[in-house]
This record gives sequence, structure tokens and C-alpha cells, in this order.
Amino acid sequence: MDCWVDGQPADALSLKDRGLAYGDGLFETIAVRNGLPVLLDRHLLRLARGCQRLAINLDHELMVAELLNYAAKLDEGVLKLIVTRGDSLRGYAFDPSVSARRILSGNPPAVYPDAHAEQGVRLFPCTTRLSNQPLLAGLKHLNRLEQVLARAEWQDTEHAEGLMLDQAGRVIEGVFSNLFLVRNGVLITADLKRCGVAGVMREEILFQGESSGIPTQITDIPLEQLQWADEVFVCNSVYGVWPVRAYAALSWPVGPLTRKLQTIANELLDA
Amino acid sequence: MDCWVDGQPADALSLKDRGLAYGDGLFETIAVRNGLPVLLDRHLLRLARGCQRLAINLDHELMVAELLNYAAKLDEGVLKLIVTRGDSLRGYAFDPSVSARRILSGNPPAVYPDAHAEQGVRLFPCTTRLSNQPLLAGLKHLNRLEQVLARAEWQDTEHAEGLMLDQAGRVIEGVFSNLFLVRNGVLITADLKRCGVAGVMREEILFQGESSGIPTQITDIPLEQLQWADEVFVCNSVYGVWPVRAYAALSWPVGPLTRKLQTIANELLDA
Repeated sequence: MDCWVDGQPADALSLKDRGLAYGDGLFETIAVRNGLPVLLDRHLLRLARGCQRLAINLDHELMVAELLNYAAKLDEGVLKLIVTRGDSLRGYAFDPSVSARRILSGNPPAVYPDAHAEQGVRLFPCTTRLSNQPLLAGLKHLNRLEQVLARAEWQDTEHAEGLMLDQAGRVIEGVFSNLFLVRNGVLITADLKRCGVAGVMREEILFQGESSGIPTQITDIPLEQLQWADEVFVCNSVYGVWPVRAYAALSWPVGPLTRKLQTIANELLDA
Repeated sequence: MDCWVDGQPADALSLKDRGLAYGDGLFETIAVRNGLPVLLDRHLLRLARGCQRLAINLDHELMVAELLNYAAKLDEGVLKLIVTRGDSLRGYAFDPSVSARRILSGNPPAVYPDAHAEQGVRLFPCTTRLSNQPLLAGLKHLNRLEQVLARAEWQDTEHAEGLMLDQAGRVIEGVFSNLFLVRNGVLITADLKRCGVAGVMREEILFQGESSGIPTQITDIPLEQLQWADEVFVCNSVYGVWPVRAYAALSWPVGPLTRKLQTIANELLDA
């Protein structure tokens, strides 16, 4: 499907765009089913927080109208919204009154081997570490060189995802997923106050856990803690939940809580 | 002057460009005098190092030919070269065989108040800290949200530059400059192994210092060390050298070594 820039079909972007110059913007990758964006409220909330943190002047109402319109036309697939701070003349300074640029693109549904969801995946141990930047932590901004470097560490198909640690060796997330552990019935995920992307499916899983009376914990996870996990899984807003069956010398069965949350994610994504 | 993309006049960029999607690329901002790029060899060396570190597949020979051609047409001003990893389909993974995209743009010479170079500048104390990422340290890559946030901290014209520290409180650089101290005749600048941009003018000043028998030191600079400096200056490849006359409650005279290095930089830039 054609891309849209500021609501109009377009195949090209201004060369002065600050998204290109500085990665000065945000993005959302959104599953679309039956013409509707899945988990839209959570995507919009994260985007709004990002705009606030970066002082990006986005017309949210107009953006939502375009996004719904685009999703309806895409019908089934994955929609990507990029919001940039618009054009720049020169230098890092910006005019806060300039409106953000809205870029929409669409792809067919992502296709992954069934085994990822059924038998689970092996995580590659990435040596690229996430840097600590509390001002940007949690946001899905356009500065993603760490993920590019981490994803380039493996080419085999044996590893479906990679595990990224922070500079202190804490478990943070996958390259394109968030990660959860289950330990003694408690659902545990990394605190993202220093680094990491606060994924929309992560938020949904925390909410679903709490709603069904499963204790949840957002905390620092030293790498050593992985060996004590009863279950491990990764998640994102496109594929839902993949059990993790192995990481380095560690291995886990596909656990009941993982399956339960996977079913909930699938119901959202297959609606 | 018109922009060029891959050697052809263009006013727009592919919406699938990885520079936009992930900041997956590098840039150089180069002064052009009499149709010639100033400090070209140093710019090309940094760019080559960046391409190597990020595994960006750039046709260097072709890029240099285009750059020289563009600079000749620009004649006087500031040329910006952006190199991106080219188009992406989806996801962080890339095909290492795809050629990098080359984007050239030109601006008239930068105009700053004469007082910056003559009486010196006051530095704004930025609270935005640089994160430690040894894999990217020194490179002029397109992930520049930290600089965007830092530059947005002040709007007054009293501060011509801002000082950025790392997470441990070490003095690293300006938002768009490198920084030097002079202490007991030694020329000191920050070690950039964890963060910061290894500026081309910084390299030239270190070289000029060594060539004229001035002792130089590349080291960690705790913030407290600023108060013991005899001279402080900032530099970049466009404006050359600005003495620093004040930072917070500290102030310095414009010193003789600063003036000497400023004269050398001006000779390069006014050639």
C-alpha cells in the first residue's frame, strides 16, 4: 500500500526532515486486523508520552484520523507510523511551533515460522549493550543504532530473537521484543527507567496479569536470575507471545502462564 | 543549492530509507572555501571509520568524486554529507551487500556574531547527559536525540554553546563542538572512548599542538577540573575556535594558546 505523508499519498520525504538528520522523532508499529489498529489506545498513549518528553508538536487528533483511515484501507497487516519534528534549516535547535510530520506505511501481515509460537524460540546472546539514558528510556524513538548493531550479530535462523543487556549486565529486552520471566507464579519484567522500549504488548500483558490476579513485578533483573526462571517469554505488538526455550546453556519448558498469556495476545491479534 | 542523492539532483528521499527509520547512518558537516572542502582528509577518515564500525557498504571513491564536484559548485559555504544504509524492507536486519545512499546538501557560510571568536562565549550548563556507548563513541552517526534535547535547554543568545557531561559527570564536549582546556601549558581534551563525537577540528588541533611542541593530553576530565584551567576553548570544523569566557560561576581570560590555535584554524577556514 502507498505511503502517506501528512495525510497525502507520497513516495518521498523532504531531505531536510529532522527524522533523517538526527533521528528526531518517534514511531509505532501497529498490527491491523479487520481494518482496525490493535491496542490502539496503548500505542497512542506511548506516542503522546514520547511527544511530550521530546517536545514534539504533534496534532494528535489529525494523526488519529489519518491512522484510522489508513488502517481501514490496509485492512490486514502491519502499519508503521513515524512522527518526526518536521524540517530543519540547520543545527540542533528547533522551532517548537513547527508541526510534526506524520508518515504512514503499511505492510502485509508478518509471517513467522509456526514453531516460534508453538515450541518457542532460542535467544541469541547479543554483546551489544544498551546504554543508560533516562531521558529517552521507554520511548520508541528513531535513534535505534543499538538495535541495528545487535540484530547484525547473528544471521542464522536458529535464533529468532536476541537478548540485550544494559551496561551493568541487567536483562532488559529483546532486539524487537520485551521479555518476561515467570518465577514461583510471579510475572517479572525489566524496569525500563534507564533504557529499553516500553512495548505496548508488555503493557497489555502486565495489565492482563494484574486483572487475572497474577502477581507482577517490574524490577532490575541481573543476568544470573535467568537460571532461576520457571518460564521465559518474549512479546511484541505484532507477533504476540513467543515462549523462550533456550538462551546460551539455559533451557525452559513452555509453561502454563506463558500459554495463557499467549492465548490472550492471540485473541487480540486474531480478532 | 539543490541537494544531490547518489550524485543526482533531488529534493526528496525514499520513505524506506534506514536513516529515517533508525538513524542508521553517518554524517559530515564540511566547510567549503574556494570550491574546496576544508580538512577533507580528516572528514573522510572519520567517515570511513564510521562505515567500518557500522558495516555500512559505502562506495568511497564514488562518494569522494561527488563530494568534490558538489563542493566546487557550492564554492563557499557549508556542505553536509549524509550516508545512510539505504532502503529497508522491514525490521532491524540489513543486507550487507546493499550500497549506502549518499546525500549532499549545501548552505551559505554560517554567520556568527564576531564577539564569539573575539571576546569568547559563555557555555550553558546542559543537564542532558551523554550516555556511554563504546560501540558508537567518536562517530558522527545519525542518532542525535541527546544533542537535540541538550540544545533545547536554552533559547537565550547569551549562551553560544552548551557543555555536555557524561553520566558520571565528566566533561565531554559541547552540543556541536569539542572542548579543550589549557593547564600549565598542556592542551587537554576529553577521552571519547565512551561517548562524544571525535570532531575533525579537534583532531586537527591535537595535530597542530603536537607539531608545534605543545604537550597534549587526551584524558577523563572531571567537572571539578574546569576551575583549574588557565584557558578553555571550543572548536568545530565550521567556526574554527571560540574562546570560552564563562561557564556557570567560572570565568577565564582569552589565553595565548587559544589565540594561537584560533589563528591556525582561521587560516584553514579562510584559505
